[in-house]
Amino acid sequence: MLIEKRITELGFTLPKVPKAAGIYSQCRSFGEKFVYISGCGTAINGKDTYLGKLGLDLTVEEGQCAAKNCILNALAVLKLNIRSLDNIKSFVKILAFVASSNDFYDQPKVVDGATKLLCDIFGDEVGVGARSAIGTNVLPGNIPVEIEILLELK
Amino acid sequence: MLIEKRITELGFTLPKVPKAAGIYSQCRSFGEKFVYISGCGTAINGKDTYLGKLGLDLTVEEGQCAAKNCILNALAVLKLNIRSLDNIKSFVKILAFVASSNDFYDQPKVVDGATKLLCDIFGDEVGVGARSAIGTNVLPGNIPVEIEILLELK
Amino acid sequence: MLIEKRITELGFTLPKVPKAAGIYSQCRSFGEKFVYISGCGTAINGKDTYLGKLGLDLTVEEGQCAAKNCILNALAVLKLNIRSLDNIKSFVKILAFVASSNDFYDQPKVVDGATKLLCDIFGDEVGVGARSAIGTNVLPGNIPVEIEILLELK
Repeated sequence: MLIEKRITELGFTLPKVPKAAGIYSQCRSFGEKFVYISGCGTAINGKDTYLGKLGLDLTVEEGQCAAKNCILNALAVLKLNIRSLDNIKSFVKILAFVASSNDFYDQPKVVDGATKLLCDIFGDEVGVGARSAIGTNVLPGNIPVEIEILLELK
Repeated sequence: MLIEKRITELGFTLPKVPKAAGIYSQCRSFGEKFVYISGCGTAINGKDTYLGKLGLDLTVEEGQCAAKNCILNALAVLKLNIRSLDNIKSFVKILAFVASSNDFYDQPKVVDGATKLLCDIFGDEVGVGARSAIGTNVLPGNIPVEIEILLELK
Repeated sequence: MLIEKRITELGFTLPKVPKAAGIYSQCRSFGEKFVYISGCGTAINGKDTYLGKLGLDLTVEEGQCAAKNCILNALAVLKLNIRSLDNIKSFVKILAFVASSNDFYDQPKVVDGATKLLCDIFGDEVGVGARSAIGTNVLPGNIPVEIEILLELK
């Protein structure tokens, strides 16, 4: 339980596993060691602290906190499905969507909130993967960030 | 041909394989058993029954029907490329984009039209994978939904 | 160095490896032979020749040139990370986002600029994979195109 200890040391608590927003799995294993986590939103324990769009309703700092929430939700999903977070070999790729006004260009800074957290928890070797940060005009339920993750297990 | 029988039982017919909209393959195998299907649109047999954006031009119900069309097109592509739809082990991940007005927040409901169909045809075990449902301001040719799929073969 | 020779023959030069726009890897290997390249932008050697949105600021032809730039940046990243571009078995999937006005529908034509270049350099067998071309209201730094790539090595 090294990773969970690290999460606690950093001052975070894993939230309740979010409910799927429709007909899909939160998490799907494939091949021998790969896992896809479905697009995770920003509500923690069912509570939407951050809603709206970057460049309009939220600051970059708020967007970064929202992006962190996506990761905490993803880790809660992972813990339920792969038992131990110590079993992760690497976060291969993160695809992050940031709800943005037409003239907000700092999606990468917002998504850094997510990838910095992964890096802080898992270290560079495991935590830092490939990434795309994409703007969009709107996300489900008016959340500001949605992140899907591909990872590889040990 | 169990899956094709099931499709017929559900009252659906596989459409003609849609033409690629440019320079790419409709379908690409990789590794030993993985397949990526290119972003599938909503026109069936070349006919655009659904065009426009959710929250502006189309109801959620129409969006769900459009999302179903994406899946039917994907299955037509798959049948051509992997011979038998019975050969699918699992639909690993679906990435679905929904053309949306700036204040339309029900992308997951729209995409349920697609994932419910997969579930009805293939059952939970095979048909229900990970998923991300993302809003966007516009899609190619003004289609309302575009879906790409990662799957694993037996 | 067959592929690099081919790039030169076609009149292109690999640019400097672009700097990551935040906390992530430009490129991540996983499994035995898979590689994900992070979302690549359109600036070449740090210079933004193309900025803005299709349907508003840029013509389709300019968008195609911008899309080509994404590929050249991706190949620069690849060369650094996998040593020889001759070691690529196939470009499995390309996910391309095109910053678009609400009524611009020709994302596939724009992205053809990217996939035609891959096809010209690597040939059909290696260069032509699955693809999704998606519109979006805005991309990081106001770039017109962002492309992430999944590929398989020999």
